[in-house]
Amino acid sequence: MRLTTLRRSGGTAAARVDSDTSATLIDGYADLSELLADSDWKSVAQNATGGSVDLTSADYAPVVPHPSKVVCVGLNYATHIKEMGRDLPQYPTLFAKFADSLAGPYDDIVVPEYAAAQIDWEAELAVVIGKQAYQVVESDAAEYIAGYSVINDYTMRDYQYRTMMWDQGKWLERSSGFGPFLDTDYRTGTAIEARLDGEVMQSATTDDLVFSPEKLVDYVSHIVTLRPGDVIITGTTGGVGHARKPAVYVRDGQTVEVTIEGLGTVKNKTIVK
Amino acid sequence: MRLTTLRRSGGTAAARVDSDTSATLIDGYADLSELLADSDWKSVAQNATGGSVDLTSADYAPVVPHPSKVVCVGLNYATHIKEMGRDLPQYPTLFAKFADSLAGPYDDIVVPEYAAAQIDWEAELAVVIGKQAYQVVESDAAEYIAGYSVINDYTMRDYQYRTMMWDQGKWLERSSGFGPFLDTDYRTGTAIEARLDGEVMQSATTDDLVFSPEKLVDYVSHIVTLRPGDVIITGTTGGVGHARKPAVYVRDGQTVEVTIEGLGTVKNKTIVK
Repeated sequence: MRLTTLRRSGGTAAARVDSDTSATLIDGYADLSELLADSDWKSVAQNATGGSVDLTSADYAPVVPHPSKVVCVGLNYATHIKEMGRDLPQYPTLFAKFADSLAGPYDDIVVPEYAAAQIDWEAELAVVIGKQAYQVVESDAAEYIAGYSVINDYTMRDYQYRTMMWDQGKWLERSSGFGPFLDTDYRTGTAIEARLDGEVMQSATTDDLVFSPEKLVDYVSHIVTLRPGDVIITGTTGGVGHARKPAVYVRDGQTVEVTIEGLGTVKNKTIVK
Repeated sequence: MRLTTLRRSGGTAAARVDSDTSATLIDGYADLSELLADSDWKSVAQNATGGSVDLTSADYAPVVPHPSKVVCVGLNYATHIKEMGRDLPQYPTLFAKFADSLAGPYDDIVVPEYAAAQIDWEAELAVVIGKQAYQVVESDAAEYIAGYSVINDYTMRDYQYRTMMWDQGKWLERSSGFGPFLDTDYRTGTAIEARLDGEVMQSATTDDLVFSPEKLVDYVSHIVTLRPGDVIITGTTGGVGHARKPAVYVRDGQTVEVTIEGLGTVKNKTIVK
Protein backbone atom coordinates (compact mmCIF):
# COMPACT_ATOMS: atom_id res chain seq x y z
CA MET A 1 0.00 0.00 0.00
CA ARG A 2 1.12 3.52 -0.82
CA LEU A 3 0.07 6.54 1.22
CA THR A 4 0.70 10.21 0.70
CA THR A 5 -0.02 13.71 2.01
CA LEU A 6 -1.53 16.12 -0.50
CA ARG A 7 -1.90 19.87 -0.35
CA ARG A 8 -5.52 20.84 -1.00
CA SER A 9 -7.31 24.14 -0.85
CA GLY A 10 -7.53 24.99 2.84
CA GLY A 11 -4.94 22.52 4.08
CA THR A 12 -3.55 19.06 3.51
CA ALA A 13 -5.11 15.61 3.40
CA ALA A 14 -3.92 12.06 3.88
CA ALA A 15 -4.61 9.85 0.90
CA ARG A 16 -4.22 6.25 -0.25
CA VAL A 17 -2.61 5.91 -3.67
CA ASP A 18 -4.65 3.56 -5.86
CA SER A 19 -2.76 3.91 -9.15
CA ASP A 20 -0.22 6.14 -10.86
CA THR A 21 -2.96 8.66 -11.48
CA SER A 22 -5.49 8.34 -8.70
CA ALA A 23 -5.77 8.38 -4.93
CA THR A 24 -8.54 8.15 -2.35
CA LEU A 25 -8.76 10.65 0.48
CA ILE A 26 -8.57 9.25 4.01
CA ASP A 27 -11.24 11.43 5.59
CA GLY A 28 -10.53 12.84 9.03
CA TYR A 29 -6.73 12.82 8.75
CA ALA A 30 -4.98 16.00 7.65
CA ASP A 31 -1.73 14.23 6.81
CA LEU A 32 0.22 11.03 7.38
CA SER A 33 1.55 12.31 10.71
CA GLU A 34 -2.04 12.39 12.00
CA LEU A 35 -2.90 9.09 10.35
CA LEU A 36 0.09 7.23 11.81
CA ALA A 37 -0.78 8.52 15.27
CA ASP A 38 -3.93 6.39 15.04
CA SER A 39 -2.92 2.88 16.11
CA ASP A 40 -5.45 1.56 13.61
CA TRP A 41 -3.89 3.52 10.73
CA LYS A 42 -3.34 0.58 8.43
CA SER A 43 -6.92 -0.61 8.28
CA VAL A 44 -8.21 2.96 8.30
CA ALA A 45 -6.13 3.57 5.17
CA GLN A 46 -7.06 0.27 3.53
CA ASN A 47 -10.77 0.89 4.09
CA ALA A 48 -10.85 4.60 3.25
CA THR A 49 -13.63 5.61 0.90
CA GLY A 50 -13.13 9.38 0.72
CA GLY A 51 -13.16 11.47 -2.41
CA SER A 52 -11.05 10.52 -5.40
CA VAL A 53 -8.07 12.69 -6.32
CA ASP A 54 -6.41 13.01 -9.73
CA LEU A 55 -2.71 12.62 -8.98
CA THR A 56 -1.63 14.03 -12.33
CA SER A 57 -2.30 17.52 -10.97
CA ALA A 58 -1.66 16.82 -7.28
CA ASP A 59 0.46 19.03 -5.02
CA TYR A 60 2.46 16.82 -2.67
CA ALA A 61 3.43 17.93 0.84
CA PRO A 62 6.34 16.36 2.73
CA VAL A 63 4.97 12.85 2.94
CA VAL A 64 5.10 12.77 6.77
CA PRO A 65 5.12 16.46 7.58
CA HIS A 66 5.37 16.62 11.39
CA PRO A 67 7.78 14.02 12.76
CA SER A 68 8.77 14.66 16.37
CA LYS A 69 12.18 13.28 15.40
CA VAL A 70 14.12 13.08 12.18
CA VAL A 71 17.12 10.96 13.12
CA CYS A 72 19.87 11.20 10.51
CA VAL A 73 22.53 8.55 10.02
CA GLY A 74 25.98 9.25 8.63
CA LEU A 75 28.63 6.90 7.23
CA ASN A 76 26.28 4.00 6.59
CA TYR A 77 27.00 2.70 3.06
CA ALA A 78 29.45 -0.19 3.42
CA THR A 79 30.91 -0.16 -0.08
CA HIS A 80 31.62 3.56 0.12
CA ILE A 81 33.19 3.30 3.58
CA LYS A 82 35.44 0.49 2.40
CA GLU A 83 36.42 2.29 -0.81
CA MET A 84 37.48 5.24 1.36
CA GLY A 85 39.83 2.85 3.16
CA ARG A 86 37.96 3.06 6.43
CA ASP A 87 36.82 0.29 8.75
CA LEU A 88 33.12 -0.32 9.12
CA PRO A 89 31.86 1.55 12.19
CA GLN A 90 30.81 -0.23 15.36
CA TYR A 91 28.09 2.31 16.17
CA PRO A 92 25.86 4.42 13.91
CA THR A 93 26.77 8.09 13.61
CA LEU A 94 23.57 9.97 14.46
CA PHE A 95 22.55 13.57 14.17
CA ALA A 96 19.22 15.35 13.78
CA LYS A 97 17.05 17.27 11.40
CA PHE A 98 13.83 19.10 12.27
CA ALA A 99 10.39 18.83 10.68
CA ASP A 100 10.69 22.44 9.47
CA SER A 101 13.60 21.37 7.26
CA LEU A 102 11.39 19.03 5.21
CA ALA A 103 10.02 20.00 1.79
CA GLY A 104 7.47 18.48 -0.56
CA PRO A 105 8.91 15.99 -3.06
CA TYR A 106 8.52 18.38 -6.01
CA ASP A 107 8.79 21.74 -4.26
CA ASP A 108 11.22 24.40 -5.33
CA ILE A 109 13.83 24.87 -2.61
CA VAL A 110 14.25 28.56 -1.91
CA VAL A 111 17.71 29.22 -0.51
CA PRO A 112 18.74 32.59 0.90
CA GLU A 113 21.85 33.96 -0.81
CA TYR A 114 23.91 33.74 2.42
CA ALA A 115 23.22 29.97 2.66
CA ALA A 116 23.74 29.08 -0.99
CA ALA A 117 27.53 28.79 -1.33
CA GLN A 118 27.90 25.03 -0.91
CA ILE A 119 24.54 23.35 -1.44
CA ASP A 120 24.82 19.60 -1.87
CA TRP A 121 22.63 16.51 -2.27
CA GLU A 122 22.45 13.24 -0.36
CA ALA A 123 20.22 10.48 -1.71
CA GLU A 124 18.72 8.59 1.23
CA LEU A 125 16.21 5.92 2.14
CA ALA A 126 13.80 7.18 4.82
CA VAL A 127 12.29 4.80 7.38
CA VAL A 128 8.96 5.89 8.87
CA ILE A 129 7.89 4.58 12.27
CA GLY A 130 4.37 3.14 12.54
CA LYS A 131 4.13 2.16 16.20
CA GLN A 132 5.65 3.51 19.40
CA ALA A 133 9.03 1.85 19.87
CA TYR A 134 11.11 1.79 23.05
CA GLN A 135 13.84 -0.80 23.62
CA VAL A 136 12.77 -2.78 20.58
CA VAL A 137 15.21 -5.47 19.49
CA GLU A 138 16.30 -5.83 15.88
CA SER A 139 14.38 -9.08 15.33
CA ASP A 140 11.10 -7.37 16.31
CA ALA A 141 11.80 -4.03 14.62
CA ALA A 142 10.02 -4.69 11.32
CA GLU A 143 6.60 -4.46 12.97
CA TYR A 144 7.42 -0.93 14.21
CA ILE A 145 8.21 0.32 10.72
CA ALA A 146 5.21 1.76 8.84
CA GLY A 147 7.10 1.90 5.57
CA TYR A 148 9.70 3.66 3.51
CA SER A 149 10.15 6.77 1.46
CA VAL A 150 12.74 8.82 -0.43
CA ILE A 151 14.55 11.89 0.90
CA ASN A 152 17.22 14.26 -0.34
CA ASP A 153 19.19 15.17 2.80
CA TYR A 154 19.83 18.65 1.42
CA THR A 155 23.03 19.97 2.96
CA MET A 156 24.86 23.28 3.28
CA ARG A 157 28.44 21.98 3.39
CA ASP A 158 29.89 25.28 4.64
CA TYR A 159 27.51 25.29 7.61
CA GLN A 160 28.10 21.56 8.14
CA TYR A 161 31.83 22.13 8.63
CA ARG A 162 31.73 25.49 10.46
CA THR A 163 32.01 23.55 13.71
CA MET A 164 32.56 19.95 14.71
CA MET A 165 28.84 19.15 14.66
CA TRP A 166 27.24 18.56 11.26
CA ASP A 167 23.68 19.30 12.38
CA GLN A 168 23.36 22.96 11.37
CA GLY A 169 24.33 22.08 7.80
CA LYS A 170 21.22 19.89 7.64
CA TRP A 171 18.62 22.28 9.05
CA LEU A 172 17.87 24.65 6.17
CA GLU A 173 14.21 25.69 6.12
CA ARG A 174 12.01 23.55 3.79
CA SER A 175 14.97 22.10 1.93
CA SER A 176 14.88 18.29 2.08
CA GLY A 177 12.51 16.92 -0.56
CA PHE A 178 10.65 14.05 1.14
CA GLY A 179 8.17 11.67 -0.48
CA PRO A 180 6.23 11.34 -2.65
CA PHE A 181 4.87 8.17 -1.03
CA LEU A 182 5.08 6.13 2.12
CA ASP A 183 5.28 2.56 0.81
CA THR A 184 4.30 -0.08 3.34
CA ASP A 185 5.51 -2.99 1.21
CA TYR A 186 8.97 -1.84 0.17
CA ARG A 187 11.93 -4.13 0.83
CA THR A 188 15.53 -2.86 0.73
CA GLY A 189 17.86 -3.95 -2.06
CA THR A 190 16.79 -1.72 -4.93
CA ALA A 191 18.76 0.97 -6.74
CA ILE A 192 19.14 4.44 -5.16
CA GLU A 193 20.41 7.29 -7.31
CA ALA A 194 20.93 11.06 -7.18
CA ARG A 195 20.99 13.13 -10.36
CA LEU A 196 21.95 16.77 -10.84
CA ASP A 197 20.19 18.22 -13.89
CA GLY A 198 19.84 14.66 -15.15
CA GLU A 199 23.46 13.60 -14.64
CA VAL A 200 23.92 10.63 -12.30
CA MET A 201 25.94 11.67 -9.25
CA GLN A 202 25.27 8.90 -6.73
CA SER A 203 24.36 5.28 -7.36
CA ALA A 204 24.05 2.41 -4.89
CA THR A 205 21.55 -0.12 -3.60
CA THR A 206 19.59 0.26 -0.38
CA ASP A 207 20.82 -3.04 1.08
CA ASP A 208 24.41 -1.81 1.26
CA LEU A 209 23.74 -0.34 4.72
CA VAL A 210 26.07 -1.11 7.61
CA PHE A 211 23.12 -0.47 9.94
CA SER A 212 19.85 -1.74 8.45
CA PRO A 213 16.51 -0.07 9.19
CA GLU A 214 15.75 -2.76 11.77
CA LYS A 215 19.14 -2.36 13.44
CA LEU A 216 18.65 1.42 13.57
CA VAL A 217 15.22 1.06 15.21
CA ASP A 218 16.88 -1.21 17.77
CA TYR A 219 19.78 1.16 18.41
CA VAL A 220 17.83 4.42 18.58
CA SER A 221 14.91 2.97 20.54
CA HIS A 222 17.31 1.86 23.25
CA ILE A 223 18.13 5.54 23.75
CA VAL A 224 14.80 7.30 23.22
CA THR A 225 11.25 6.42 22.22
CA LEU A 226 10.47 6.43 18.50
CA ARG A 227 6.91 7.61 17.93
CA PRO A 228 4.53 6.93 15.05
CA GLY A 229 5.50 9.25 12.22
CA ASP A 230 9.09 9.67 13.40
CA VAL A 231 11.63 9.27 10.65
CA ILE A 232 15.09 7.75 10.40
CA ILE A 233 17.04 8.72 7.30
CA THR A 234 19.63 6.09 6.71
CA GLY A 235 22.65 7.84 5.24
CA THR A 236 24.12 8.29 1.81
CA THR A 237 26.73 6.72 -0.45
CA GLY A 238 29.68 8.23 -2.34
CA GLY A 239 29.26 10.81 -5.07
CA VAL A 240 28.18 13.89 -3.16
CA GLY A 241 29.24 17.16 -4.73
CA HIS A 242 31.51 18.31 -1.92
CA ALA A 243 33.77 15.23 -2.24
CA ARG A 244 34.24 15.58 -6.00
CA LYS A 245 37.45 16.95 -7.50
CA PRO A 246 36.73 19.69 -8.22
CA ALA A 247 33.77 20.08 -5.88
CA VAL A 248 30.32 20.46 -7.44
CA TYR A 249 27.57 22.41 -5.69
CA VAL A 250 23.94 22.97 -6.60
CA ARG A 251 23.51 26.34 -8.28
CA ASP A 252 20.50 28.57 -8.73
CA GLY A 253 18.05 26.95 -11.13
CA GLN A 254 19.52 23.45 -10.95
CA THR A 255 17.41 20.41 -10.14
CA VAL A 256 18.29 17.44 -7.96
CA GLU A 257 16.42 14.17 -8.34
CA VAL A 258 16.69 11.28 -5.93
CA THR A 259 15.16 8.00 -7.07
CA ILE A 260 14.78 4.76 -5.20
CA GLU A 261 13.59 1.96 -7.45
CA GLY A 262 10.21 0.81 -6.21
CA LEU A 263 9.65 3.91 -4.08
CA GLY A 264 9.69 6.83 -6.49
CA THR A 265 11.51 10.09 -7.03
CA VAL A 266 11.86 13.44 -5.30
CA LYS A 267 12.74 16.21 -7.71
CA ASN A 268 13.48 19.68 -6.40
CA LYS A 269 14.74 22.76 -8.16
CA THR A 270 16.93 25.13 -6.12
CA ILE A 271 16.09 28.82 -6.32
CA VAL A 272 18.61 31.19 -4.74
CA LYS A 273 17.23 34.52 -3.60
CA MET B 1 5.79 36.71 35.31
CA ARG B 2 6.46 33.04 35.98
CA LEU B 3 4.62 30.26 34.18
CA THR B 4 4.74 26.52 34.63
CA THR B 5 3.28 23.20 33.50
CA LEU B 6 1.83 21.02 36.25
CA ARG B 7 0.86 17.37 36.21
CA ARG B 8 -2.72 16.98 37.45
CA SER B 9 -5.01 14.01 37.61
CA GLY B 10 -5.96 13.25 34.02
CA GLY B 11 -3.25 15.30 32.34
CA THR B 12 -1.25 18.49 32.64
CA ALA B 13 -2.20 22.14 32.97
CA ALA B 14 -0.56 25.47 32.25
CA ALA B 15 -0.40 27.73 35.28
CA ARG B 16 0.72 31.19 36.32
CA VAL B 17 2.89 31.24 39.42
CA ASP B 18 1.63 33.86 41.88
CA SER B 19 3.95 33.18 44.82
CA ASP B 20 6.34 30.54 46.12
CA THR B 21 3.36 28.48 47.21
CA SER B 22 0.51 29.23 44.88
CA ALA B 23 -0.37 29.28 41.19
CA THR B 24 -3.44 29.99 39.08
CA LEU B 25 -4.51 27.58 36.35
CA ILE B 26 -4.67 28.98 32.83
CA ASP B 27 -7.87 27.28 31.71
CA GLY B 28 -7.93 25.80 28.23
CA TYR B 29 -4.19 25.22 27.90
CA ALA B 30 -2.82 21.78 28.75
CA ASP B 31 0.76 23.01 29.02
CA LEU B 32 3.08 25.86 28.12
CA SER B 33 3.65 24.44 24.63
CA GLU B 34 -0.06 24.94 23.94
CA LEU B 35 -0.13 28.31 25.65
CA LEU B 36 2.85 29.70 23.72
CA ALA B 37 1.24 28.59 20.44
CA ASP B 38 -1.45 31.22 21.16
CA SER B 39 -0.08 34.53 19.90
CA ASP B 40 -1.93 36.20 22.76
CA TRP B 41 -0.26 33.97 25.37
CA LYS B 42 1.10 36.77 27.51
CA SER B 43 -2.18 38.51 28.21
CA VAL B 44 -4.00 35.18 28.46
CA ALA B 45 -1.57 34.21 31.22
CA GLN B 46 -1.71 37.59 32.93
CA ASN B 47 -5.51 37.59 32.98
CA ALA B 48 -6.02 33.94 33.88
CA THR B 49 -8.52 33.35 36.67
CA GLY B 50 -8.61 29.55 36.80
CA GLY B 51 -8.44 27.45 39.94
CA SER B 52 -5.76 28.01 42.53
CA VAL B 53 -3.07 25.36 43.00
CA ASP B 54 -0.96 24.75 46.09
CA LEU B 55 2.59 24.57 44.76
CA THR B 56 3.96 22.95 47.91
CA SER B 57 2.53 19.64 46.73
CA ALA B 58 2.66 20.26 42.98
CA ASP B 59 4.03 17.78 40.43
CA TYR B 60 5.95 19.67 37.76
CA ALA B 61 6.15 18.47 34.15
CA PRO B 62 8.95 19.56 31.79
CA VAL B 63 8.13 23.27 31.77
CA VAL B 64 7.65 23.38 27.98
CA PRO B 65 6.96 19.74 27.22
CA HIS B 66 6.57 19.58 23.42
CA PRO B 67 9.11 21.79 21.64
CA SER B 68 9.40 21.04 17.92
CA LYS B 69 13.09 21.87 18.32
CA VAL B 70 15.54 21.72 21.19
CA VAL B 71 18.64 23.35 19.76
CA CYS B 72 21.70 22.63 21.89
CA VAL B 73 24.79 24.83 21.91
CA GLY B 74 28.26 23.57 22.76
CA LEU B 75 31.44 25.44 23.68
CA ASN B 76 29.72 28.68 24.65
CA TYR B 77 31.18 29.80 28.01
CA ALA B 78 33.96 32.25 27.23
CA THR B 79 35.94 31.95 30.46
CA HIS B 80 36.01 28.17 30.20
CA ILE B 81 37.04 28.22 26.53
CA LYS B 82 39.87 30.63 27.30
CA GLU B 83 41.05 28.64 30.34
CA MET B 84 41.23 25.59 28.07
CA GLY B 85 43.65 27.61 25.90
CA ARG B 86 41.26 27.74 22.95
CA ASP B 87 40.24 30.68 20.80
CA LEU B 88 36.66 31.89 21.01
CA PRO B 89 34.65 30.29 18.21
CA GLN B 90 33.40 32.25 15.21
CA TYR B 91 30.21 30.18 14.89
CA PRO B 92 28.08 28.42 17.48
CA THR B 93 28.43 24.65 17.70
CA LEU B 94 24.88 23.31 17.39
CA PHE B 95 23.35 19.91 17.88
CA ALA B 96 19.89 18.68 18.82
CA LYS B 97 17.85 17.09 21.55
CA PHE B 98 14.28 15.81 21.23
CA ALA B 99 11.23 16.58 23.34
CA ASP B 100 11.15 12.97 24.54
CA SER B 101 14.51 13.54 26.23
CA LEU B 102 13.05 16.17 28.58
CA ALA B 103 12.10 15.39 32.19
CA GLY B 104 10.24 17.27 34.89
CA PRO B 105 12.42 19.46 37.11
CA TYR B 106 12.13 17.13 40.11
CA ASP B 107 11.59 13.79 38.37
CA ASP B 108 13.72 10.77 39.09
CA ILE B 109 15.74 9.92 35.99
CA VAL B 110 15.46 6.21 35.28
CA VAL B 111 18.51 5.04 33.36
CA PRO B 112 18.76 1.55 31.84
CA GLU B 113 21.85 -0.29 33.04
CA TYR B 114 23.38 -0.35 29.53
CA ALA B 115 23.24 3.46 29.34
CA ALA B 116 24.48 4.21 32.86
CA ALA B 117 28.27 3.89 32.59
CA GLN B 118 29.17 7.55 32.06
CA ILE B 119 26.24 9.73 33.10
CA ASP B 120 27.18 13.39 33.43
CA TRP B 121 25.61 16.77 34.13
CA GLU B 122 25.62 20.05 32.23
CA ALA B 123 24.11 23.13 33.89
CA GLU B 124 22.47 25.27 31.20
CA LEU B 125 20.31 28.31 30.66
CA ALA B 126 17.32 27.48 28.43
CA VAL B 127 15.83 30.10 26.12
CA VAL B 128 12.17 29.59 25.19
CA ILE B 129 10.80 31.09 21.98
CA GLY B 130 7.56 33.06 22.26
CA LYS B 131 6.90 34.13 18.69
CA GLN B 132 7.65 32.59 15.31
CA ALA B 133 11.13 33.70 14.27
CA TYR B 134 12.67 33.47 10.80
CA GLN B 135 15.63 35.59 9.78
CA VAL B 136 15.39 37.69 12.92
CA VAL B 137 18.36 39.94 13.58
CA GLU B 138 20.05 40.08 16.97
CA SER B 139 18.78 43.57 17.76
CA ASP B 140 15.17 42.42 17.34
CA ALA B 141 15.59 39.01 18.93
CA ALA B 142 14.48 39.89 22.47
CA GLU B 143 10.86 40.23 21.40
CA TYR B 144 10.89 36.65 20.08
CA ILE B 145 12.03 35.22 23.41
CA ALA B 146 9.17 34.26 25.76
CA GLY B 147 11.52 33.78 28.68
CA TYR B 148 14.10 31.60 30.33
CA SER B 149 14.36 28.43 32.33
CA VAL B 150 16.87 25.96 33.80
CA ILE B 151 17.95 22.67 32.25
CA ASN B 152 20.36 19.89 33.06
CA ASP B 153 21.66 18.72 29.66
CA TYR B 154 21.94 15.16 30.97
CA THR B 155 24.60 13.37 28.97
CA MET B 156 25.80 9.82 28.39
CA ARG B 157 29.49 10.53 27.68
CA ASP B 158 30.18 7.06 26.26
CA TYR B 159 27.39 7.46 23.71
CA GLN B 160 28.47 11.06 23.05
CA TYR B 161 31.93 9.92 21.98
CA ARG B 162 31.01 6.64 20.24
CA THR B 163 31.07 8.55 16.95
CA MET B 164 32.03 12.05 15.83
CA MET B 165 28.52 13.42 16.47
CA TRP B 166 27.60 14.20 20.07
CA ASP B 167 23.84 14.04 19.55
CA GLN B 168 23.10 10.46 20.66
CA GLY B 169 24.76 11.14 24.00
CA LYS B 170 22.11 13.80 24.63
CA TRP B 171 18.97 11.87 23.68
CA LEU B 172 18.32 9.60 26.65
CA GLU B 173 14.60 9.16 27.32
CA ARG B 174 13.16 11.58 29.96
CA SER B 175 16.57 12.54 31.29
CA SER B 176 17.06 16.31 31.11
CA GLY B 177 15.39 18.01 34.07
CA PHE B 178 13.76 21.15 32.65
CA GLY B 179 11.98 23.87 34.63
CA PRO B 180 10.49 24.48 37.07
CA PHE B 181 9.41 27.85 35.65
CA LEU B 182 9.42 29.87 32.49
CA ASP B 183 10.40 33.34 33.70
CA THR B 184 9.46 36.15 31.32
CA ASP B 185 11.44 38.80 33.19
CA TYR B 186 14.80 37.10 33.68
CA ARG B 187 17.93 38.89 32.52
CA THR B 188 21.25 37.08 32.07
CA GLY B 189 24.14 37.75 34.43
CA THR B 190 23.21 35.67 37.46
CA ALA B 191 24.98 32.67 38.97
CA ILE B 192 24.57 29.22 37.41
CA GLU B 193 25.68 26.19 39.34
CA ALA B 194 25.57 22.38 39.18
CA ARG B 195 25.81 20.29 42.34
CA LEU B 196 26.24 16.52 42.70
CA ASP B 197 24.80 15.33 46.03
CA GLY B 198 25.22 18.89 47.29
CA GLU B 199 28.84 19.37 46.18
CA VAL B 200 29.39 22.26 43.76
CA MET B 201 30.70 20.95 40.44
CA GLN B 202 30.07 23.83 38.02
CA SER B 203 29.86 27.54 38.74
CA ALA B 204 29.62 30.46 36.30
CA THR B 205 27.37 33.37 35.41
CA THR B 206 24.89 33.34 32.55
CA ASP B 207 26.37 36.41 30.87
CA ASP B 208 29.66 34.64 30.13
CA LEU B 209 28.23 33.35 26.85
CA VAL B 210 30.16 33.78 23.61
CA PHE B 211 26.81 33.64 21.78
CA SER B 212 24.07 35.39 23.76
CA PRO B 213 20.43 34.26 23.60
CA GLU B 214 19.69 37.08 21.13
CA LYS B 215 22.67 36.17 18.95
CA LEU B 216 21.57 32.52 18.95
CA VAL B 217 18.04 33.44 17.87
CA ASP B 218 19.60 35.45 15.06
CA TYR B 219 21.94 32.66 13.98
CA VAL B 220 19.51 29.74 14.17
CA SER B 221 16.57 31.66 12.69
CA HIS B 222 18.66 32.42 9.61
CA ILE B 223 18.79 28.66 9.04
CA VAL B 224 15.36 27.45 10.12
CA THR B 225 12.19 28.87 11.65
CA LEU B 226 12.03 28.93 15.44
CA ARG B 227 8.46 28.32 16.60
CA PRO B 228 6.71 29.32 19.81
CA GLY B 229 7.74 26.86 22.49
CA ASP B 230 10.97 25.89 20.75
CA VAL B 231 13.97 25.84 23.05
CA ILE B 232 17.62 26.80 22.73
CA ILE B 233 19.86 25.48 25.49
CA THR B 234 22.89 27.66 25.63
CA GLY B 235 25.80 25.44 26.60
CA THR B 236 27.70 24.72 29.77
CA THR B 237 30.86 25.82 31.55
CA GLY B 238 33.78 23.84 32.96
CA GLY B 239 33.40 21.31 35.76
CA VAL B 240 31.55 18.48 34.09
CA GLY B 241 32.33 15.06 35.53
CA HIS B 242 33.90 13.61 32.39
CA ALA B 243 36.63 16.28 32.31
CA ARG B 244 37.64 15.83 35.98
CA LYS B 245 40.80 13.95 36.94
CA PRO B 246 39.77 11.35 37.82
CA ALA B 247 36.46 11.44 35.96
CA VAL B 248 33.28 11.60 38.06
CA TYR B 249 30.02 10.13 36.79
CA VAL B 250 26.53 10.16 38.28
CA ARG B 251 25.87 6.88 40.05
CA ASP B 252 22.64 5.14 41.01
CA GLY B 253 20.90 7.10 43.75
CA GLN B 254 22.85 10.32 43.29
CA THR B 255 21.14 13.67 42.78
CA VAL B 256 22.14 16.49 40.47
CA GLU B 257 20.87 20.00 41.09
CA VAL B 258 21.21 22.84 38.62
CA THR B 259 20.42 26.31 39.96
CA ILE B 260 20.27 29.59 38.12
CA GLU B 261 19.92 32.51 40.50
CA GLY B 262 16.61 34.20 39.80
CA LEU B 263 15.22 31.26 37.85
CA GLY B 264 15.19 28.35 40.25
CA THR B 265 16.52 24.82 40.53
CA VAL B 266 16.07 21.49 38.80
CA LYS B 267 16.87 18.57 41.08
CA ASN B 268 16.84 15.05 39.71
CA LYS B 269 17.86 11.79 41.30
CA THR B 270 19.29 9.13 38.97
CA ILE B 271 17.92 5.61 39.34
CA VAL B 272 19.75 2.90 37.41
CA LYS B 273 17.71 -0.15 36.54
